[in-house]
Amino acid sequence: MPSLLVLPYRRLLRVPSEETIFSALRTAGIRIPSDCGGQGRCGRCKVRFLEAAPSPTSADSRFLSEEELSAGWRLSCQHRVEHDFTLEVPTLGEVAQVKVRSGEQPIGSLRPQAVQRTVAIPPPSRGDRRADLERLCAALGEEVEVPLSVLAKLPEVLRTGDFQITVTRVGRKVVEVEPGAQAKGPYGLALDIGTTTLAAYLLDLGKGEELLAKALANPQAAFGADVLSRIGYVQEHGQKGLAALKGRLLEAIGQLVESLVGPLGLSPEEIVQAAVVGNPTMMHLFAGVDPSPIGQAPFTPVWKRGMTFQARELGLRMNPEGIVHVLPLVSGYVGADTVAAVLACGLHHAEGLALLLDLGTNGEIVLGGRERMVACSAAAGPAFEGGRIACGMPGVEGAIFRVELNGGVRYQVLGGGEPQGLCGTGLVDAVAVLLSIGLIDPCGRLLSGDGTPFAAHIEGKGNARRFRIEEGKRPIYITQRDIRELQLAKGAIRAGVEVLLSRMGATPEEIDRVYLAGAFGSQMRPESLVQLGLLPEELLPRIVPVGNAAGTGAKLALLDCEALPEAERIAQEMEYVELSYEKPFAKQFVAQMRFPESRKEVRS
Amino acid sequence: MPSLLVLPYRRLLRVPSEETIFSALRTAGIRIPSDCGGQGRCGRCKVRFLEAAPSPTSADSRFLSEEELSAGWRLSCQHRVEHDFTLEVPTLGEVAQVKVRSGEQPIGSLRPQAVQRTVAIPPPSRGDRRADLERLCAALGEEVEVPLSVLAKLPEVLRTGDFQITVTRVGRKVVEVEPGAQAKGPYGLALDIGTTTLAAYLLDLGKGEELLAKALANPQAAFGADVLSRIGYVQEHGQKGLAALKGRLLEAIGQLVESLVGPLGLSPEEIVQAAVVGNPTMMHLFAGVDPSPIGQAPFTPVWKRGMTFQARELGLRMNPEGIVHVLPLVSGYVGADTVAAVLACGLHHAEGLALLLDLGTNGEIVLGGRERMVACSAAAGPAFEGGRIACGMPGVEGAIFRVELNGGVRYQVLGGGEPQGLCGTGLVDAVAVLLSIGLIDPCGRLLSGDGTPFAAHIEGKGNARRFRIEEGKRPIYITQRDIRELQLAKGAIRAGVEVLLSRMGATPEEIDRVYLAGAFGSQMRPESLVQLGLLPEELLPRIVPVGNAAGTGAKLALLDCEALPEAERIAQEMEYVELSYEKPFAKQFVAQMRFPESRKEVRS
Ligand code: FES
Ligand code: FES
Repeated sequence: MPSLLVLPYRRLLRVPSEETIFSALRTAGIRIPSDCGGQGRCGRCKVRFLEAAPSPTSADSRFLSEEELSAGWRLSCQHRVEHDFTLEVPTLGEVAQVKVRSGEQPIGSLRPQAVQRTVAIPPPSRGDRRADLERLCAALGEEVEVPLSVLAKLPEVLRTGDFQITVTRVGRKVVEVEPGAQAKGPYGLALDIGTTTLAAYLLDLGKGEELLAKALANPQAAFGADVLSRIGYVQEHGQKGLAALKGRLLEAIGQLVESLVGPLGLSPEEIVQAAVVGNPTMMHLFAGVDPSPIGQAPFTPVWKRGMTFQARELGLRMNPEGIVHVLPLVSGYVGADTVAAVLACGLHHAEGLALLLDLGTNGEIVLGGRERMVACSAAAGPAFEGGRIACGMPGVEGAIFRVELNGGVRYQVLGGGEPQGLCGTGLVDAVAVLLSIGLIDPCGRLLSGDGTPFAAHIEGKGNARRFRIEEGKRPIYITQRDIRELQLAKGAIRAGVEVLLSRMGATPEEIDRVYLAGAFGSQMRPESLVQLGLLPEELLPRIVPVGNAAGTGAKLALLDCEALPEAERIAQEMEYVELSYEKPFAKQFVAQMRFPESRKEVRS
Repeated sequence: MPSLLVLPYRRLLRVPSEETIFSALRTAGIRIPSDCGGQGRCGRCKVRFLEAAPSPTSADSRFLSEEELSAGWRLSCQHRVEHDFTLEVPTLGEVAQVKVRSGEQPIGSLRPQAVQRTVAIPPPSRGDRRADLERLCAALGEEVEVPLSVLAKLPEVLRTGDFQITVTRVGRKVVEVEPGAQAKGPYGLALDIGTTTLAAYLLDLGKGEELLAKALANPQAAFGADVLSRIGYVQEHGQKGLAALKGRLLEAIGQLVESLVGPLGLSPEEIVQAAVVGNPTMMHLFAGVDPSPIGQAPFTPVWKRGMTFQARELGLRMNPEGIVHVLPLVSGYVGADTVAAVLACGLHHAEGLALLLDLGTNGEIVLGGRERMVACSAAAGPAFEGGRIACGMPGVEGAIFRVELNGGVRYQVLGGGEPQGLCGTGLVDAVAVLLSIGLIDPCGRLLSGDGTPFAAHIEGKGNARRFRIEEGKRPIYITQRDIRELQLAKGAIRAGVEVLLSRMGATPEEIDRVYLAGAFGSQMRPESLVQLGLLPEELLPRIVPVGNAAGTGAKLALLDCEALPEAERIAQEMEYVELSYEKPFAKQFVAQMRFPESRKEVRS
């Protein structure tokens, strides 16, 4: 029976393939809005496919915009569960009353820390001479903290609004007061700060809805492509370098925030709470804290615990009294993004053994479940991101992102136009295809292909040999060197998995589920990863791409006040394994650079 | 037996007149430093007389500077307790171990919230990969809050100081980290923001010592002499007016702070905690909060509770991460200064009935004791501060501040030079003298003096009549109008006392002690106040001037972490009586404008 991972609730549903998603969700107690009962006539039941969205039906096209369709939104009553996949349900507000369980924990209630409330307050009179603040606290029924900037507004706001006032709080802190009945938010910002890409999500925390999501390249790339080169930049340029890196980042985030609130007619000041995730170095640079200790043995960060800052302290473009949570770090190389991804996919509640992989220049790997979790970070090099590859490029328009064998080498290009190069997933697919047809041997050698239908694709000799994917105006190749780069990446990740398995005393077969997370990782074809030997073959049916699970975790931190303490527990419980201190790692690394023997194409 | 009020411990000692102050303090368990055992040879036993300091002995002159002597400092082993008076003991640090009791409460331990500690921290190693922050918390043995600016310094400070670090905290908040062993503070600032005068005290919170005190005129005087005219200015000029008033005040406080730290070679950033007192309007203007609601019935402030702000929010010249406490208010006209004065003189612990008077344009009056306290504010007009008086002037150099009958009318001038005018205490003394010799009748009429030795001093008729105190280059008079102004002031205060007494169901005789507090009030000759009828004659021996008790209360708030919650209880327990709503007040006011019948000079 195919299974369906429903985010952000982290519920895994096994669903008969004849059932519609709409009915499966309803059966499972996840309330999906609908006025037509699943007949495709109301357009309210939309969900988002985080991978391989099915072709839109005519009902989809009628009710959903072009943008929504291309973002993976479909009407849930129009599609069936034909294979495993992950989807996201849009509104938490609608399901706030439902106790959703993931593992043993009740999860998924809408319990935001940020709340907005309109209260009517008796005005002062001869018989009631309490101060404005005492009057407000009494009306709210509890003690609140009022920062000076809000206190300074209070007398005028109370009197303008005729002693009716809308109060926005984050926890006990009052971050905004407005005259009259203004409640329409509050709004929250989830931020995933990647080394390469920034992703931002605007949430209506009152309704539990994601309103808009935007991404932007991390402008720090100008100072170095990876974490180590950015740390190096700070070490070389000191406080000025640090300020430059922080400044560029905050400027870009400011642009993202404007692009989120602008279309909705909101102002950045209406965002009162933010949750931020990313790797430890990005978190340090975001906060303006020198990440140098991460760059030197023993690779410790300046802080690990989840931190709570004032937006004002950070200079973040939002309400200056707003609260910003940076989720906890595990070590210098396993960060808030990994903790958030674990939170989102519920690995820490798993009964059996689960594996979380976030592939990138640094691959974060978590193995475990409710009893115990171990984690490491493996330096995979830039191959998964298309870096240091002859025809490599990032996963943007013009990149070949899929390569298949279908009566010849076929490929797909992002955006559909002329191919400009190969992105990481394209490279992985291409090498997997060449392995499957025996053109690459287990040592990673690109063979001549003599006597095969592909001989014409091969040029050159030895280290200069290459396989042509496309001729045409801009020929695109895979070179022997590219294969070596990918071997390094694959070897590092697989060796990391093996080290964690042996730390756990477990074998690969005991892994019940593999979550592929992150911008790159969740886009990889599971079949190709297995063909490469990045994961053992028997895990293929257990692989679940979970999209940007780190971003989902950040959203959860805003939507559910229990999520932050939960993230803290995850970070504390997770055992970090520093691979550079592990003797078996080096041996595994070398061994795992080999590709698997099997030359048959692996099928799911 | 004369009694001795010892501040800041608020202990009242009854001392045989043959005993030296030094031995009386020691007997009472108040530890006074000494190396010579009271023989006048070590110079360490100094105390400060808050009123009428005795003439310096030769030992005083040997060990104490001119400045100290003129500020009232004397060696306690050199003086005896010949009549009631108040003195201040300089160092709390020296007596930190002594349980001093005032009423039933243990008071006067040095228990500051701000503490400085040097800790050695194990550096990170392969076997200990905790983050810097976690490492610090473990070394401190408790969880602390670290603001971003301090977190950003942490990695460098730790490494510069070879993992020895000095941490300054206010409560749980770390406000400063410095490399190595730096402990020499921490420093605190007590601020008394008067409508007319700003007083600032710099304290070493580690030792419990007052290092320096400075005063400055409140520059807001340019916007109006009294509270109501400043509120009027804000109402007229809106946010800009408010910003101007706040700006001028903070600028002056900044100058005060510089003048406190400069001579000691400190920087303002070394001040990490401040306690601020003043009347409600001054507290609103200090915080930049519109005080308008105080200006209109029902005269409520924007807040009452004690507030805690970040120095950064206020823009106060000190460590920007420092903590600023504004003591609680009781109403729109009874403020943090009154609460602090009660705290300092211990009225809220009094077994019997005590009366606290702070005379000024608004006279604050508190009556009560440990069971119950009632308070009011009486609009006395500017007479007590020398305002709206023909030859009136503030109590600065050149002001006649004492007038006596001693074979003729004699006076004393502040600073000793030519008299320029009369300050409030001079006016009170002068009227008291004229009453005592029958030149003013109980209705307040200035008589012709015909047939008396003073006839030559009198000029004019009716409302234009005046009494010449000094001819010479700049003749100085008291006019019939001046007497009327003083009658208004006296009438308002005495009527306020009577209203509070009747609210308490008590008679004047039941008052055990009268504390005269404040810059003006504590300078008044008790005999003159009684002669005027501002206080009933039977209270004369029970009057104790307590100096700037509000400032002392602010210091206590920094020195003893229990003082702030105590102030909160005082403010909550104090019943506020709004005199404008009290019918009996108007009647009393008119009746109390009369002076007492007795024409004999009242002697203590
Ligand atoms: S439920 Fe109405 S369109 Fe799907
Ligand atoms: S005790 Fe030594 S001088 Fe007074």
